[in-house]
Amino acid sequence: MIIIGEKLNSAIPSVRQLINDKETMAIQELARRQAEAGADYLDLNTAQGEELDNMEWLVNTVQEVTDVPLCIDSTEAAAVKRGLEAVKGDKSRALVNSISMEKKRIEEMLPLVLEHGCPVIGLTVDDNGIPKTAEERIRLTEQMVELLARKNYDLSKLYIDPLVLPLAVHHTNAKMFFECISEIKRRFNVKTVSGLSNISFNMPKRKVINRYFLAIGMAFGMDAAILDPLDGKMMTAVTATEVLIGNDRFAKNYLKAFRADQLKD
Amino acid sequence: MIIIGEKLNSAIPSVRQLINDKETMAIQELARRQAEAGADYLDLNTAQGEELDNMEWLVNTVQEVTDVPLCIDSTEAAAVKRGLEAVKGDKSRALVNSISMEKKRIEEMLPLVLEHGCPVIGLTVDDNGIPKTAEERIRLTEQMVELLARKNYDLSKLYIDPLVLPLAVHHTNAKMFFECISEIKRRFNVKTVSGLSNISFNMPKRKVINRYFLAIGMAFGMDAAILDPLDGKMMTAVTATEVLIGNDRFAKNYLKAFRADQLKD
Repeated sequence: MIIIGEKLNSAIPSVRQLINDKETMAIQELARRQAEAGADYLDLNTAQGEELDNMEWLVNTVQEVTDVPLCIDSTEAAAVKRGLEAVKGDKSRALVNSISMEKKRIEEMLPLVLEHGCPVIGLTVDDNGIPKTAEERIRLTEQMVELLARKNYDLSKLYIDPLVLPLAVHHTNAKMFFECISEIKRRFNVKTVSGLSNISFNMPKRKVINRYFLAIGMAFGMDAAILDPLDGKMMTAVTATEVLIGNDRFAKNYLKAFRADQLKD
Repeated sequence: MIIIGEKLNSAIPSVRQLINDKETMAIQELARRQAEAGADYLDLNTAQGEELDNMEWLVNTVQEVTDVPLCIDSTEAAAVKRGLEAVKGDKSRALVNSISMEKKRIEEMLPLVLEHGCPVIGLTVDDNGIPKTAEERIRLTEQMVELLARKNYDLSKLYIDPLVLPLAVHHTNAKMFFECISEIKRRFNVKTVSGLSNISFNMPKRKVINRYFLAIGMAFGMDAAILDPLDGKMMTAVTATEVLIGNDRFAKNYLKAFRADQLKD
């Protein structure tokens, strides 16, 4: 399971403040702790209108303290460009978050991905918005896979995010997401990814929902998740599920986590 | 999700003692608490060699305090017979635990099931033991379904238990179980059931494994589980998973459980 650490996100008011105040030590502390907790990528998200300089500063600040690859997260291609320019060494290690089938994103964001050969998160959305059905999301995935294949992009670097919507909006939204995941894996053999917070929007005890959503999603083939690696119960869900779906030979990682007192009941 | 309360089981030393000492009040308390916690059946299991009188006593004792249907659990047909005889009212409400494709069980246990038209748990085992592969377990399921169909048994009352083996024995044992469940649902459209404790045998933090095993199993089509309904975190796993797999319209039960302070993080 590929863990994308979500904590350096300007949607979190306190983090946005830290970024705007250029609080180097606090940002580096959040980066270091997520890396130590097992994040495979650190998501760096900047708020609209504050993008350009903040993204460059974030990238520089974080890579001073960790070698964990960065996930450059912005809807603005100009911010992603500045972020990628600031990445030290092999820029193809950075994950771009995200492209979609929206015309503007294809025109502006895709060239950056192709130029550096970065892995990329592909959202199943186009200029008509997020499709209502699983079938339409599969079709957008197909269009994206075909587009990237024509550009000779290495499809093993593509992470499709089928964009789960809240259970509070419709009680079959998680079910549809699981169907998307397993169908995308079956048909295209690309990676899949999701955030964990949308699903439980407007419900109580959100973390309970998020953890079982993650476990079931993994069982249906979810390869990566954007989550808080400092949440011990969430990371325990990952570790336990890896054993259950047969990815942890001799339960080696599970037992290692147990001995390090990392399994939270 | 159908919950079969597991607490009145003679494999638990303290419960075996209560049964042998005919501690009516303590047994009734365990029955009542499981019923209140939402059990759909109460499993009544007696130890080998102590079966006959104990089973009759257990059935009589429990049905004095609850109308929740009973699950008559013994490898000995004579004990199941005595248990069913003691069931008050409609005996076809009692779940028989269990039949298998072992010759002795078919000859001795199946007639009791057919006589009363009881629902029954069918284990995928024959006189060669528990098969190693999912395919062989599916084949035993097919044999059992065909046998019961020939006897004009109502197949909607059959609960197949594909007999999960511990992860500590092989790291793909849960994965194979999930495959069995979804294939059995797809091919035969009968119900499926499992206990939750085998999977985590000889591993630390067993309850964590058990909860995610349950959630993933439910997502693959598990209809019933033998579990401890007094375990709040386990019941929370059931409630959260029901929402996630689309079985809880408007999250009505989830929200009800939240308001009753039953969701345990």
